[in-house]
Amino acid sequence: MTDLSPTPRTTLTREKERGRTDRDELLALLDEAIIAHIGVVAGGHPVVVPVAFAVDADGPDEGGTLYVHGSVAAGWMRKAPGSDVCVTVTALDGLVLARSAFNHSMNYRCAVVIGSARLVEDEAERARAMELTVDHVVPGRAATLRANTRKELAATAMLAVPLHEASLKTRTGGVEDEPEDVAAGAWAGVVPLRIVSGDVETDPETSEPVPDDVRRRAAQLSN
Amino acid sequence: MTDLSPTPRTTLTREKERGRTDRDELLALLDEAIIAHIGVVAGGHPVVVPVAFAVDADGPDEGGTLYVHGSVAAGWMRKAPGSDVCVTVTALDGLVLARSAFNHSMNYRCAVVIGSARLVEDEAERARAMELTVDHVVPGRAATLRANTRKELAATAMLAVPLHEASLKTRTGGVEDEPEDVAAGAWAGVVPLRIVSGDVETDPETSEPVPDDVRRRAAQLSN
Repeated sequence: MTDLSPTPRTTLTREKERGRTDRDELLALLDEAIIAHIGVVAGGHPVVVPVAFAVDADGPDEGGTLYVHGSVAAGWMRKAPGSDVCVTVTALDGLVLARSAFNHSMNYRCAVVIGSARLVEDEAERARAMELTVDHVVPGRAATLRANTRKELAATAMLAVPLHEASLKTRTGGVEDEPEDVAAGAWAGVVPLRIVSGDVETDPETSEPVPDDVRRRAAQLSN
Repeated sequence: MTDLSPTPRTTLTREKERGRTDRDELLALLDEAIIAHIGVVAGGHPVVVPVAFAVDADGPDEGGTLYVHGSVAAGWMRKAPGSDVCVTVTALDGLVLARSAFNHSMNYRCAVVIGSARLVEDEAERARAMELTVDHVVPGRAATLRANTRKELAATAMLAVPLHEASLKTRTGGVEDEPEDVAAGAWAGVVPLRIVSGDVETDPETSEPVPDDVRRRAAQLSN
């Protein structure tokens, strides 16, 4: 267990009591979340898009490496290399319905990683990053697939962001109301939220059974 | 039904066939999604954070108004007014597990709104934006709560972003594999995903029953 060491860029500006400093908690959220949102600056304005991603905690960058997957043709991917980017991963855990509008909130876990983005050019690192990205979606699946073709490799870009500058902010638990609002007797509570999978939809063009890794992943997401 | 009119900043750079131009579809996604991610440029680098938000399709800005809720003390909120921001709303609808790593994808709907952020200063507009934000979480709830105090109003900021410059990109349906991969016979399919609510957790300090609006919202999210 290593502590997160936020720089000024990843130091919380408010509700600092919600800040977490345990790197293992950060890695657990990045493991659980399916997508991230990456922000890049393009032509002076920010652009934020959802992306597939993966983590190599022992990757070559300071603090480990967060890999972001994209097309070489994507506008944001062309802008990112060599620039600072922000990768944010959010799990929404509940609606906090307080007795006042002001104390309404959400339960969540949110990781913010800021760093200089590096285009992965080493072929071995790129292949590994792509495998990690598939395995992040369904653990174990990469090993069951055919190798990428040269054309496929040429069309895919992986961006590496150091996990060094990161913050983790979470809210958990129940409502936090003013004593006078509690005394007034109105209802308050929490609606817990989670992502679940439905039944696996097998492609009509195959008669193979659902592979074990996919079955396990769907079962995990149904719990 | 009005068409979206993307500017160069919100014109898709790839997979343009996934672009949608129906403003009603954009509004439907913004209605369904619970959180957005806002990107701002702060000190030369992007910052992306999750936020509560609401839409007033008849709001005072071109194309209607997207309101983003935040604390007056949040670092990103202090940077945003007068600057271009990007507000991205993503619904993740499924894991698309193809026969090759390359054709793996996700089903999703993603709205990207770029525009100059305006700090809402008119008190009537601000009160309305705050009500819309509560009602976006649980429709009908704002009218059941006590009025905000002056102190609460002073601590809350609402940012207005025009809905004029917006894009909507979606992927739906099954896997899209190469014919030779289909012929090789491997399994492929889709794992559908959705957000669901668990049982409503009533605060132990109230004996009131769960209000109808909360019950309806939880039931809607359970379907």
